[in-house]
Amino acid sequence: MKLVIEPLSKQAFSDFGDVIETTDSEHFLINNGSTQRFHDLAKIDMGEEGRMLVNIFRATPRSYPLTIEMVERHPLGSQAFMPLGSNPYLVLVAPKGEAVSPEDLRLFSAAADQGVHYHAGTWHHPVLALGGVSDFLVIDRGGDEHNCDEIFFDTDDIRIEL
Amino acid sequence: MKLVIEPLSKQAFSDFGDVIETTDSEHFLINNGSTQRFHDLAKIDMGEEGRMLVNIFRATPRSYPLTIEMVERHPLGSQAFMPLGSNPYLVLVAPKGEAVSPEDLRLFSAAADQGVHYHAGTWHHPVLALGGVSDFLVIDRGGDEHNCDEIFFDTDDIRIEL
Repeated sequence: MKLVIEPLSKQAFSDFGDVIETTDSEHFLINNGSTQRFHDLAKIDMGEEGRMLVNIFRATPRSYPLTIEMVERHPLGSQAFMPLGSNPYLVLVAPKGEAVSPEDLRLFSAAADQGVHYHAGTWHHPVLALGGVSDFLVIDRGGDEHNCDEIFFDTDDIRIEL
Repeated sequence: MKLVIEPLSKQAFSDFGDVIETTDSEHFLINNGSTQRFHDLAKIDMGEEGRMLVNIFRATPRSYPLTIEMVERHPLGSQAFMPLGSNPYLVLVAPKGEAVSPEDLRLFSAAADQGVHYHAGTWHHPVLALGGVSDFLVIDRGGDEHNCDEIFFDTDDIRIEL
């Protein structure tokens, strides 16, 4: 099956997390009016014992068509990705739950000015850069507890075509 | 007095906070080797009762030469700024403490791939965009407690010239 690419929007992504963007976001003026503050765009959740990490991910694009083999989740904390350059990227997710079937997958096309924040437990594919090596600011949870589950699909017929 | 502009580096900024950048940062490979993770670049501190906010600041450049009238601090939480575009910016800080004299100020020139993280209590000027309207991802503390102090200088002779 070829996954359908949908445009990323807050409404379409609301079952999976937040879209971090200025579009349709509340803002107010600060610094004597010289700065617009688009306020509180992602409800970061590090759980009870977690420490928040700030990282930069430098991602190399995959080759397309791409066969999707797996998704992963972080049950103990949420995770945010914000692009630092001008490249778009893809976001592949599935709803929380103990199992994921290929029909559960949703594929979104994100613009360079859109970040994504996965709720804790949201299944997602590792970062899918497009257009060249791409840097992202990533916020996630640090801690010694096990915080990454993976599901591998028993088919090689899930693919992304650009 | 005209403030001297210094290049921003982790070492030069260490009294005030962290520089969020890939240069001289530890990294390891994830996602089957397709992604470099530059790990744990800022020790975010939201204090005891604080909630972490993720925001976008859209900053308009000031006019130069610029007279520096004040600095501010957030005593209860740290604050991080990461540029989202290709513009450089300026970072004006002073060490923690109850007073700031003009001689305490340090002015840094930050590149578009350098973020800054102010430790809680570090005095700093509001964001100083350069080169055009600039977006920053900003991490700071939410909460009802008073968390912004300002100091106004009793001189109009502190200035930045580009």
